[in-house]
Amino acid sequence: MPRRYTIGANVEIGEHTVIEEGAVIGHRVAIGHGVVIRRGTIVGDGARIDDGSVLGKTPFSNPKMARKPFEHLEPLVIGPNARIGSGAVIYAGVRLGADVLVGDLASIRERVTIGDGSIIGRNATVEPNTRIGSRVTIQTSSYITSDMIIEDDVFVGPCCSSSNDKYMGRGRYPHRGPVLKRGCRIGNNATLLPGITIGEDAVVGAGAVVTRDVPPGWTVVGNPARELERGHRDGGAS
Amino acid sequence: MPRRYTIGANVEIGEHTVIEEGAVIGHRVAIGHGVVIRRGTIVGDGARIDDGSVLGKTPFSNPKMARKPFEHLEPLVIGPNARIGSGAVIYAGVRLGADVLVGDLASIRERVTIGDGSIIGRNATVEPNTRIGSRVTIQTSSYITSDMIIEDDVFVGPCCSSSNDKYMGRGRYPHRGPVLKRGCRIGNNATLLPGITIGEDAVVGAGAVVTRDVPPGWTVVGNPARELERGHRDGGAS
Amino acid sequence: MPRRYTIGANVEIGEHTVIEEGAVIGHRVAIGHGVVIRRGTIVGDGARIDDGSVLGKTPFSNPKMARKPFEHLEPLVIGPNARIGSGAVIYAGVRLGADVLVGDLASIRERVTIGDGSIIGRNATVEPNTRIGSRVTIQTSSYITSDMIIEDDVFVGPCCSSSNDKYMGRGRYPHRGPVLKRGCRIGNNATLLPGITIGEDAVVGAGAVVTRDVPPGWTVVGNPARELERGHRDGGAS
Repeated sequence: MPRRYTIGANVEIGEHTVIEEGAVIGHRVAIGHGVVIRRGTIVGDGARIDDGSVLGKTPFSNPKMARKPFEHLEPLVIGPNARIGSGAVIYAGVRLGADVLVGDLASIRERVTIGDGSIIGRNATVEPNTRIGSRVTIQTSSYITSDMIIEDDVFVGPCCSSSNDKYMGRGRYPHRGPVLKRGCRIGNNATLLPGITIGEDAVVGAGAVVTRDVPPGWTVVGNPARELERGHRDGGAS
Repeated sequence: MPRRYTIGANVEIGEHTVIEEGAVIGHRVAIGHGVVIRRGTIVGDGARIDDGSVLGKTPFSNPKMARKPFEHLEPLVIGPNARIGSGAVIYAGVRLGADVLVGDLASIRERVTIGDGSIIGRNATVEPNTRIGSRVTIQTSSYITSDMIIEDDVFVGPCCSSSNDKYMGRGRYPHRGPVLKRGCRIGNNATLLPGITIGEDAVVGAGAVVTRDVPPGWTVVGNPARELERGHRDGGAS
Repeated sequence: MPRRYTIGANVEIGEHTVIEEGAVIGHRVAIGHGVVIRRGTIVGDGARIDDGSVLGKTPFSNPKMARKPFEHLEPLVIGPNARIGSGAVIYAGVRLGADVLVGDLASIRERVTIGDGSIIGRNATVEPNTRIGSRVTIQTSSYITSDMIIEDDVFVGPCCSSSNDKYMGRGRYPHRGPVLKRGCRIGNNATLLPGITIGEDAVVGAGAVVTRDVPPGWTVVGNPARELERGHRDGGAS
């Protein structure tokens, strides 16, 4: 019994690729080899989907997990001219805007929205229920926890880490991810604690461990992170 | 010539999936598209194996590697109701208990045992010859080195790093991974040095660099990690 | 219409593997299941290419990226007896020497050269335009940014991070990655800032944040990294 999906004009599809029931593929889409497109996924015109990526995965859980997966997820929507890397895994319930780039081996969990032109770097992770604005860069191997808000034009360097659970798995309370305000920049391998806010245009130095809010425009460095003194050039502001 | 493997009742198998000689698949197992199940692998009842995962891989090495791969590995055993994520890579010689969850793009090397109900997060790595207890959480992108012992109910936050080689590749001596005692909790992006012990119910703050043993129940923060003073709230204890 | 590629004697090829036009596969090569070998890729004698890896990928970009992909890349060349892990992604324009080992889920971008016998660990990333010498070890999950120079016999521990962009995405200026001189050793989860040089046989402690050049033979630890005092054993030199 042939599957029923919808496909536009001038679409290339590689070998050993699976497109499930109800998927909608736009015009001029290039799909590589060994791709899996799960049921109902919507791919915009001009997108490129690379080898071995998995689109529209549904979540699972085990008895220990505090948070159960969301039910009744909307289909994954990939915007026009998006680029999806090899081996990337993107869940149902995600909406990617136009021109979004997702690197190889990156993964994006359910109930995430990402605005136009943003970049999710190779091997990076975005956890559930996080909102990412437009023209945001999340660099390679960075970890974006759940329940974060990342505004437009934010820059997160490589290998940054965030968390949303003050009590590390004990007790029942709401998780709170960090908030990254418009235009702030986070240096590579920085560590962000739960619930903190990084202000507009603030800068977090490479390797800094941010334990409390950073006011707009400040630069902080160190462990724990402190304001960088003016004229002091040794703190690693970038 | 058809392969000979054993398969239970009510098993779903996706497209372009390879199941090699001698594999044993239990009842009610759901296997996705493009999965590779290498020879002899045993999958318990009720397990879910997601798209593109590789089960039962055999190790390789090159002339520079200090440690040669173990010979004569037992088959990979996946316990009942386990969940294996998309793109995960799990070696021969691994035993996963019941209800274990392995996230997308995680990898687990040979001669590792993991107890019932534990979670190995997405994109995390567990190196060879490590023992992990029951109800342990290893969060996203954490790195568990070889020769570690992780007792029951331990929590390792996202992006943590461990090491087992004091001399960084020089000289010939036994490698010693850290020991994480029952119920200890490690904050995100913490760094653990070779051979240290984190005591029962101890807490390591986010971004801490732990250079020596942490006594049971202590909380340590900073670089190098020091005991957090009571009432002092700025060290990043979580 | 059958594809035209060249293949040596005693080559094993798994199921659902794609070998594109113009690829050249040497003698005694073992290729797993679900592998993608893109057009023109050259694989040396005795290599092992594991399940689900992607060889010879061409880059993509989006409107926000500062650096556009290089045009007219040479084919990927994999040296004799190389080992390529499951799910690894290696771009066109890369040259790997003899006996190079690339771990599972690692990725290597275009215009990178890697000398004989070096190891790129599992889940590690090497960005474009970087040169890596011979007998180098890059351990699991480390991040090697673009425009780096890594000389022979360097050791980079697990989860290290580097960067090449002082201004984090603002302004137009040349990017400068760190330079790692012969025989230096970098501890796990260390952070390297843009443009610094780590001298010959220098040691960077685990978790250190290196904000300026390290002279040959020095050992540095901490955030920001400082020279370790002689006889002082608590700084985490390895």
